[in-house]
Amino acid sequence: MSEERDKKELYYHVDGSLVPASKATVSVRDRGFMYGDGAFETLRAYGGDVFKWDSHADRLDETCTILQLDHGLSRETLKQRIDDTLDANNFTDAYVKLAITRGVQPGKLTPQPTSDPTVVVYVSSLPRGGKESTPVWDGPATLQTVKTKRIPNNALPARAKTHNYLNGILARLELRVSDADEAVMIDQDGFIAEGATSNLFFVDDNALKTPSLEGPVLPGITRQTVIELAESESIPVETGRYRPDDLRSADEVFVTNSTWEIRPVDRVDGISIGEAAGAGPVTTLLSILYDRQVESQHYDTQTA
Amino acid sequence: MSEERDKKELYYHVDGSLVPASKATVSVRDRGFMYGDGAFETLRAYGGDVFKWDSHADRLDETCTILQLDHGLSRETLKQRIDDTLDANNFTDAYVKLAITRGVQPGKLTPQPTSDPTVVVYVSSLPRGGKESTPVWDGPATLQTVKTKRIPNNALPARAKTHNYLNGILARLELRVSDADEAVMIDQDGFIAEGATSNLFFVDDNALKTPSLEGPVLPGITRQTVIELAESESIPVETGRYRPDDLRSADEVFVTNSTWEIRPVDRVDGISIGEAAGAGPVTTLLSILYDRQVESQHYDTQTA
Repeated sequence: MSEERDKKELYYHVDGSLVPASKATVSVRDRGFMYGDGAFETLRAYGGDVFKWDSHADRLDETCTILQLDHGLSRETLKQRIDDTLDANNFTDAYVKLAITRGVQPGKLTPQPTSDPTVVVYVSSLPRGGKESTPVWDGPATLQTVKTKRIPNNALPARAKTHNYLNGILARLELRVSDADEAVMIDQDGFIAEGATSNLFFVDDNALKTPSLEGPVLPGITRQTVIELAESESIPVETGRYRPDDLRSADEVFVTNSTWEIRPVDRVDGISIGEAAGAGPVTTLLSILYDRQVESQHYDTQTA
Repeated sequence: MSEERDKKELYYHVDGSLVPASKATVSVRDRGFMYGDGAFETLRAYGGDVFKWDSHADRLDETCTILQLDHGLSRETLKQRIDDTLDANNFTDAYVKLAITRGVQPGKLTPQPTSDPTVVVYVSSLPRGGKESTPVWDGPATLQTVKTKRIPNNALPARAKTHNYLNGILARLELRVSDADEAVMIDQDGFIAEGATSNLFFVDDNALKTPSLEGPVLPGITRQTVIELAESESIPVETGRYRPDDLRSADEVFVTNSTWEIRPVDRVDGISIGEAAGAGPVTTLLSILYDRQVESQHYDTQTA
């Protein structure tokens, strides 16, 4: 309760107002709380602005379309709320989460038209990774294939990024006994799909490979960025359906998400990946290219 | 804001305190809100006490075990909070919902040990159905088979009753065009599983049939009660894997949950069920037996 502590308290943005994080609440009747009935995006701000906002806004639209959640807010309004929240916290490099739920509605499970959505912007300080800084992770990831299978698209489309995250939580809970950082989740047919909060990539036969979006795979913004960077360097990119063994026997493996960016993987199911310690050449190259893109889009005044 | 309206405001129970429903909130960082990472039970109170508390408490334990959510509260404490909430609202016949989440935790998706769970008791007035009263539903249900498939048990066990309810919500959203009351959800193999918020029963060849719990089917407390009532009357009960056609061609169909109790079904996918209007003989008999059980357990002083 000291003045210093007050000064450090985060501000979130809830339903149009900036509020101290400790006072940022929603009704227990919010459908986000009762049913996980909401959409969200996780973003990173670099140099005061969020990375790939248009791509995130597109995906949020897609999620809301699937949920038939017509929140009625323009993407300019949403972007402004993010900017205002970053400003209120004096953040330039930050983790940002934007969440939209159907709010409180009469009745029970069946949704009504959305007239009063709940809109929350969360932020926390997150120094930039990349070549000029330290990554947010403290080393390469170890992966473990888990028994919890990814939810099929016909039950809950993976391209919808929603507040229903228990599938990934059950996967992560399995890691308590294995000490791994991320789960490798398999689909109903035995093909690798994705991590609990990341997309999977591997390098084999000099090609970059990643599970196809035809499976239960989130179309990650970082995933798409990495594919484009690889193509720009004429690295062959293949999307398809792969088995855990393909991952275990790969030359290089890495995982991606907005927070981790590109995180090398050194072990899968206890098996060491690659010949030497550290990230392999393709992973290293893509990491450099990713950093350069962040640098050029967000810190161009500093790179002279 | 009139005094009369203030008097009528509901009281909920949140984290150990009775609070007006309009002030019943949780943090936006509550894992129940961010991930649907919570367990719940829907119950009914009859004559001042909740029906089948032990069965609900057992199932809540099962859900929390699956989620590894060790909330640390005894079932006596939970029951007391329900009783206190009913008392505060002067409710004897009511709808009750008990929700427990992992609360606010540091870190992101991977859960930490639960030291500060969120516990919410919701109530609303709900007059008793049954022979002495009017049912909570306003007529037989019409069912519609939907395209959204039930989540397989290997992705999210159906026996866990959690805040991840988007699968059922997507099913209900499909009913917007069909005007049906409840969805019939199919599993990945094409067998009928359950409704979005109810268990399915049908009568055929003089036997009562319901999908087996081996499929993605919630072990409904009302479902189990109905099975026991049927067995007590020597009605043959069969659990198994059935197709939508079995439902459409049945002599009688009904759905169950704690709120609806036993609700007759008059149409499935546009096809009328049974020969005559109104509930069939087995449905009617089971409804009477169900009412008698409620009556004898909760209103015994009134049945002399």
